[in-house]
Amino acid sequence: MIAVYPGSFDPPTLGHIDVIRRAVNIFGELTVLVAESSKKTSLFTAQERKTLLEKVLEGKNVRVEIHSGLTVDYVKKIGGKVIIRGLRAVSDFEYELQMATMNRKLQPTIETLIIMTGEEFSYISSNTVKEVAHHGGDISKVVPPTVDEAVRKKMRL
Amino acid sequence: MIAVYPGSFDPPTLGHIDVIRRAVNIFGELTVLVAESSKKTSLFTAQERKTLLEKVLEGKNVRVEIHSGLTVDYVKKIGGKVIIRGLRAVSDFEYELQMATMNRKLQPTIETLIIMTGEEFSYISSNTVKEVAHHGGDISKVVPPTVDEAVRKKMRL
Amino acid sequence: MIAVYPGSFDPPTLGHIDVIRRAVNIFGELTVLVAESSKKTSLFTAQERKTLLEKVLEGKNVRVEIHSGLTVDYVKKIGGKVIIRGLRAVSDFEYELQMATMNRKLQPTIETLIIMTGEEFSYISSNTVKEVAHHGGDISKVVPPTVDEAVRKKMRL
Amino acid sequence: MIAVYPGSFDPPTLGHIDVIRRAVNIFGELTVLVAESSKKTSLFTAQERKTLLEKVLEGKNVRVEIHSGLTVDYVKKIGGKVIIRGLRAVSDFEYELQMATMNRKLQPTIETLIIMTGEEFSYISSNTVKEVAHHGGDISKVVPPTVDEAVRKKMRL
Amino acid sequence: MIAVYPGSFDPPTLGHIDVIRRAVNIFGELTVLVAESSKKTSLFTAQERKTLLEKVLEGKNVRVEIHSGLTVDYVKKIGGKVIIRGLRAVSDFEYELQMATMNRKLQPTIETLIIMTGEEFSYISSNTVKEVAHHGGDISKVVPPTVDEAVRKKMRL
Amino acid sequence: MIAVYPGSFDPPTLGHIDVIRRAVNIFGELTVLVAESSKKTSLFTAQERKTLLEKVLEGKNVRVEIHSGLTVDYVKKIGGKVIIRGLRAVSDFEYELQMATMNRKLQPTIETLIIMTGEEFSYISSNTVKEVAHHGGDISKVVPPTVDEAVRKKMRL
Repeated sequence: MIAVYPGSFDPPTLGHIDVIRRAVNIFGELTVLVAESSKKTSLFTAQERKTLLEKVLEGKNVRVEIHSGLTVDYVKKIGGKVIIRGLRAVSDFEYELQMATMNRKLQPTIETLIIMTGEEFSYISSNTVKEVAHHGGDISKVVPPTVDEAVRKKMRL
Repeated sequence: MIAVYPGSFDPPTLGHIDVIRRAVNIFGELTVLVAESSKKTSLFTAQERKTLLEKVLEGKNVRVEIHSGLTVDYVKKIGGKVIIRGLRAVSDFEYELQMATMNRKLQPTIETLIIMTGEEFSYISSNTVKEVAHHGGDISKVVPPTVDEAVRKKMRL
Repeated sequence: MIAVYPGSFDPPTLGHIDVIRRAVNIFGELTVLVAESSKKTSLFTAQERKTLLEKVLEGKNVRVEIHSGLTVDYVKKIGGKVIIRGLRAVSDFEYELQMATMNRKLQPTIETLIIMTGEEFSYISSNTVKEVAHHGGDISKVVPPTVDEAVRKKMRL
Repeated sequence: MIAVYPGSFDPPTLGHIDVIRRAVNIFGELTVLVAESSKKTSLFTAQERKTLLEKVLEGKNVRVEIHSGLTVDYVKKIGGKVIIRGLRAVSDFEYELQMATMNRKLQPTIETLIIMTGEEFSYISSNTVKEVAHHGGDISKVVPPTVDEAVRKKMRL
Repeated sequence: MIAVYPGSFDPPTLGHIDVIRRAVNIFGELTVLVAESSKKTSLFTAQERKTLLEKVLEGKNVRVEIHSGLTVDYVKKIGGKVIIRGLRAVSDFEYELQMATMNRKLQPTIETLIIMTGEEFSYISSNTVKEVAHHGGDISKVVPPTVDEAVRKKMRL
Repeated sequence: MIAVYPGSFDPPTLGHIDVIRRAVNIFGELTVLVAESSKKTSLFTAQERKTLLEKVLEGKNVRVEIHSGLTVDYVKKIGGKVIIRGLRAVSDFEYELQMATMNRKLQPTIETLIIMTGEEFSYISSNTVKEVAHHGGDISKVVPPTVDEAVRKKMRL
């Protein structure tokens, strides 16, 4: 069965990698969908985020794609059935509930499944990572080495 | 008794209409107050949102007004006693509590009453509606037909 | 319009009195409905709680009744339209949402309205009051004098 | 892949049936695990709850079993990989997070997946159902007909 | 300054030990206060819980005491200024807020301070520990060895 | 022991002053750290906020400093051990948990302690203060007189 894990991944964190590992473990394979947001200003371009994810996930049964429209439209197009979401916190939960409900109204046959993030990654977010790196802090414990290097390179520019 | 239901309504959703219907049912009449925010960039102008609400609410005992100041000041000016709020989720709840407490400090005689939105509308927000429409998604199940048409027309521009 | 404020009131706290005062201010009158629970062991009998409320609310336009069935059945019987609930905290909110939704399924014409408790009473519950009194603590700042006296008398027995 | 949906189901509600339907849709089949709790007093025996679920789920690719130990032990014994949970509300979420974390410590290879309940069932719980039925209320909109009948029969005794 | 960490500790978990370690690190010393609840049925007696804590905390600058009244009364008696609480989850937070507010009304000079539990212990509770042990599960990753042994011995009886 | 209370304080509210007063009461002294954010547009400059805080806190054992980097780096530099945070609401709590966890990864020896704000200040935020003042509302009940005057002067410009 085709499962899709959508997100901004700006940048990918160890929390994202943990969700991906668990999802592949359950569904055998996974499509990671990088959202190409036109609104939010991102640190990395969608293509850079795709490349970062592909490096980090090399050897895993994971495909990385970029999509700029509605997630449910992409999932339907590729014949997928399941949207995967990782959950960190209660405030996340409500946003997820809202999105899942809206997605269900748009495509009733596609289900949203939530995977609990490992508790050691439970309070890592891309925004916190960027904030810490911006102030010269060490992010090596919360992102993969490839991402650590890329963030530092990007921020130096 | 005069009750006022303030909001951005950018655009009005079926969730808003549900709250308005229930409030009219309780208080006999209702004033819907469209906030003319100077900060947030809105999809529709305050006047357009007023017109949309008036079309959708035609025949109901509802007056629609635009106001750019503090809600409590407007409510006091028209001799109102009650501010109506609809509640979707827990995160809403805390913001509402904060606003209600501040409003109480500003005008102790005006009460904030919360109406539970119907659960079929519980996870619809104006922001989600705009996000879905922006990506070409179908919003006809979450907004009235008049609003659906207006959003599609506006976004095509 | 007839509004009903149901609860256990075991014992009534200043938080309850605050909600009642605000509800009377809005609706002109109020029926306080004391739940005669067959399950929970209560400190005061339903009759004692009714008497306590009547003493504390003397002179206010409030009627106190005892009811052992579903709140919505009582509200419908007396031709009421509105159930009033006070809200202290987020965890309350979810329980209230669940009850309001169930009540709506039972009686779609009866609405549940939530009044924000004054913030100085926001974290008082009957259970905390009983726990503190049980250990000989001073509850005079969180319950009316009549209730304070009754609780101390009851606990001494 | 074998997925297990554990719970008390005392009684099964339309919310449970909704989760089961979605889980079968995703995983092809499902094992529903009725917890035989030694502590909580239940309305129906574990065997009665199993029979109710089997009647309601007849024709669906669902197996119903009774288990009195740890869920993860059962899942491991039958070679399962996934525990399914339905989520109604934020307070549920935290309990689920706690259980999922503990289960992960007990059996790191078993994942907990959360399915969003349909919003029309989002605030139905077995406890509310029992409370309403206990007071003679109509539960036909929140449980399957078979369960409705069984609850009314059981409560009359 | 004298800081007091009250709780049931039935049994003590690695989460409790983590809070105690952090509190000693900040305040130099700590008094752990074992609540002798007359209501809740506990697995261990207050004396047994005191002995378990003393064994586990040997060599640390921690005193363990039993108290059956209000925590604030004890803290005041020994000239303490601070009540320490560990926080696991949002639902905890609201209960803590309620207790802290009540304690402040009882003794305005005593403050409640919350220490964030280490995220690896964030979803361990005494109740979950007992539930898992009751079903023969392995609790060695969530309690100290001394407690693990004592729980297994106690449950065998 | 050196404790640091970081924040934006744009502007300082009675809620902040309440936390500061309680923290000084516990730790004897306090360093208030004004964040010089490069991102958020603030009403007052960091220097103006520092001056406001110094005026309001005159005579208290409080030092006010400006810092533009990571809080933990500053705390470490001055040999501090504790970061103080005030808590208003559940949504705050999750953000605080996320920041505290990240800070712990960056500097494991520095602890984050949460002080409960007095309930009469529990729903005051700098943002609400600015919103009310922007609309010509009275903020004298939620900020110190010095801040009230400064906000009105600044907004007139």
